Parts: sequence; C-alpha cells; structure tokens
Amino acid sequence: MNFIDSKQISEFSKVYRLNLINSITGYKPANLIGSKSTKGKTNLAIFSSVVHLGSKPPLIGIITRPNTVPRDTYRNIVESSYYTINHISKNMVERAHFTSAKFSEDESEFHHCNFEEEYIKDFNAPFVKESKVKIGMQLVEEKHIDANDTILIVGEVKNIIIDKKSLEEDGSVNLGRDETVCISGLDTYYETNKISKYPYARKDNLPF
Amino acid sequence: MNFIDSKQISEFSKVYRLNLINSITGYKPANLIGSKSTKGKTNLAIFSSVVHLGSKPPLIGIITRPNTVPRDTYRNIVESSYYTINHISKNMVERAHFTSAKFSEDESEFHHCNFEEEYIKDFNAPFVKESKVKIGMQLVEEKHIDANDTILIVGEVKNIIIDKKSLEEDGSVNLGRDETVCISGLDTYYETNKISKYPYARKDNLPF
Repeated sequence: MNFIDSKQISEFSKVYRLNLINSITGYKPANLIGSKSTKGKTNLAIFSSVVHLGSKPPLIGIITRPNTVPRDTYRNIVESSYYTINHISKNMVERAHFTSAKFSEDESEFHHCNFEEEYIKDFNAPFVKESKVKIGMQLVEEKHIDANDTILIVGEVKNIIIDKKSLEEDGSVNLGRDETVCISGLDTYYETNKISKYPYARKDNLPF
Repeated sequence: MNFIDSKQISEFSKVYRLNLINSITGYKPANLIGSKSTKGKTNLAIFSSVVHLGSKPPLIGIITRPNTVPRDTYRNIVESSYYTINHISKNMVERAHFTSAKFSEDESEFHHCNFEEEYIKDFNAPFVKESKVKIGMQLVEEKHIDANDTILIVGEVKNIIIDKKSLEEDGSVNLGRDETVCISGLDTYYETNKISKYPYARKDNLPF
C-alpha cells in the first residue's frame, strides 16, 4: 500500500489533486439542480454533492462554492428560495455532464444541453422533464464553511414526482428500475447492480 | 408520474418516510468511520453521508446526529480530533452493514463485526485493515444544522493509504478495481459498471 501524506497532497499538480480528492470519498449521487433567476432565466447544473440530512423534516443538503461556477445556482436559490433536484438516468449522462460548461448568465443549460423545462402545479422552479425522479426543494438555511469558503445549502423537500412503479412497498426508491447513475471524481459515470439488502441491524441478529 | 406533496410525506409511517427520504437523493458512498475514545476504546460505524467539500485544502464532510446513534463516532471525533474514512469493498458489505447495530460503549464494532484495527505510522485513530482505500482525517470545524439538530463535521485529509495500482495516471481513484460499493437508502448495496468518462466541459466542445 502507498502512504500519501499532507505534504505530498499539497505538492501534487492542481489537476492531479482535484482528481484524487474528488474521487477519494467513493461513489457520489448524480443530480441536476434546476433553478430560475428573479429575471426568469433558468439554470441547470450537475451536482455530485447532494447529501441526505434527515427524514423528519425531510432535509437535503448541497455543497456549493458561491464565488465560482456554478454561481448561478447559488444566487438563484438564495434569491428565489426554490429549486429542484432531478435524478440523472443513463440516457441523460452525456447531456448532464456538459451542463458544467461555462454558459453565460443569459444562456440556459436546459436549452444548450437539450433538456426540457417542466413546471408542475404552482412550484416556482423548473424540473427536468426527462428525469425519472424529481424533487421540489425550498431553502431552509445556509451554513458557511470557513475552512474553504463553501456553503452547505439546507433545503426541505416540498414535493416528489416519481413513477409509482419506482416506489417499493417499504417506501424505497428503486434506483435500478430508473437507471439512475452515480459519479466518481469529476467526470466518470457508472451504472449499478444490486448486490444485497439487509434487515435493520441488531446485536441479536448478526449473521456471523 | 405520481405527485407526492409535503402533507403526504409528513403523514407517511415513520419507516416508509425513512426509506423514501433516505433513497430519494440517489446513490451514496459506502464508508466506515474509525475512531477511538480518550479511554482507548475503538469504534467503527458505517456512514453514507460522506461528502466532498474541496480539494485545496483537501476537505471532506460527514453528517452526524450527536444525540442518537452513532453518537460514539461524534464524541470520539470531537474529543480526539482524529478519525479515519475507509472504503467498503464488495466482500465487506455484510460486516459493514451490521456495524450499525447498537453495541455498548465498551464493545468495539471492529471485534464484533470481524474487522481488524490497523495503526499506520503515528496516526492516532484506527484504520480498517481490510479496506482498499483508507483516509486519515483531522477535525477542522463543526457546523450545527438548526433545522434538525444534526452536525456537519468538516475534516481535513491528513493522509491517504491506497494501492498504487488503484491510482490512475491523472490522480483518479479506480473504484472499480477495488470493488468499492455504493448504497441506496438504509440497507441496499450495489456494485458498479463504468459507463463513460468525459473531458472537462467547455462550450466549444459540446458533443451534441
């Protein structure tokens, strides 16, 4: 095994370090965040930093860097309070990846990356029509991470749009049925195969 | 498509809501967090909330609920400042899942779930010998999420232990070679197949 220390990490080239540290945490979820400016311009950005925060109330976090790309997403969320989280399926991967190109504020990634905006009931943020699982979110709080000037955006799930067939009897989303993908690092996409599902763990039901 | 609103989510049974909201964000990384109390008792806990925060400095976040399981991990990290993040490979999945059983403070999940503690150089937290990728972490800051009383633990990567063969030329970790798995919800584990890797996205290299 190779031992890499802090000094070596800091001395790697920028690209090498970016690839290493972005892939070292394992697989990441693949989602598109949809938002809209107060001027009505829509934005769509791929995020791999979506994280479950809690179920009651249903809270989801995303990490963003307000002063760099994708700054439009951050500004839109803060200004409008509403945004959407949309799963990326296998047939959307290439288009989703290229939402990370630097489009100008006037250019919508929906248009340039061939996704269709969808508005559902009176929810004031664009969903991605092609997504199999869509979540309408409302901003709850922001947490500034001092160590590197990033922000944890905490949002509450206001609604979920999903095919009934993708919901298991116990409430779990069948990600395999929807061909939802995952990401490693900045640029690599994976499909999955289910290995196993286990019961709730108790000391008296250890299988070994 | 089925539209589920806030009211319906709040009225679901506890277990149904837990399963739904824990799986709605997509695939999650599968890691074991190793830590040690000031009394020298080791702890090992499965976490699916590990999130990349930044590469320079190299920062990783984990979400924990200090007043519920796995409270030992939180207390150990705050008291000792050091902890480890260890990837879960396919052959570790069952043992890793059952670290979530409620063992008493005096019982180490390393022992009860058949993992071997490994100490590397002078780093003051236990790594998981069986893991193919291990990260030594130091606590940097804690952020309290008011909305549900959870904590984002921000840590800096102090060292990485990895087989040289698992590092690609560009710094990326080859998660497939190590058979690293991912999680959906609270109990379902997946292996992966690589679909594609794309170049850095620019407006002038859109493939469509």
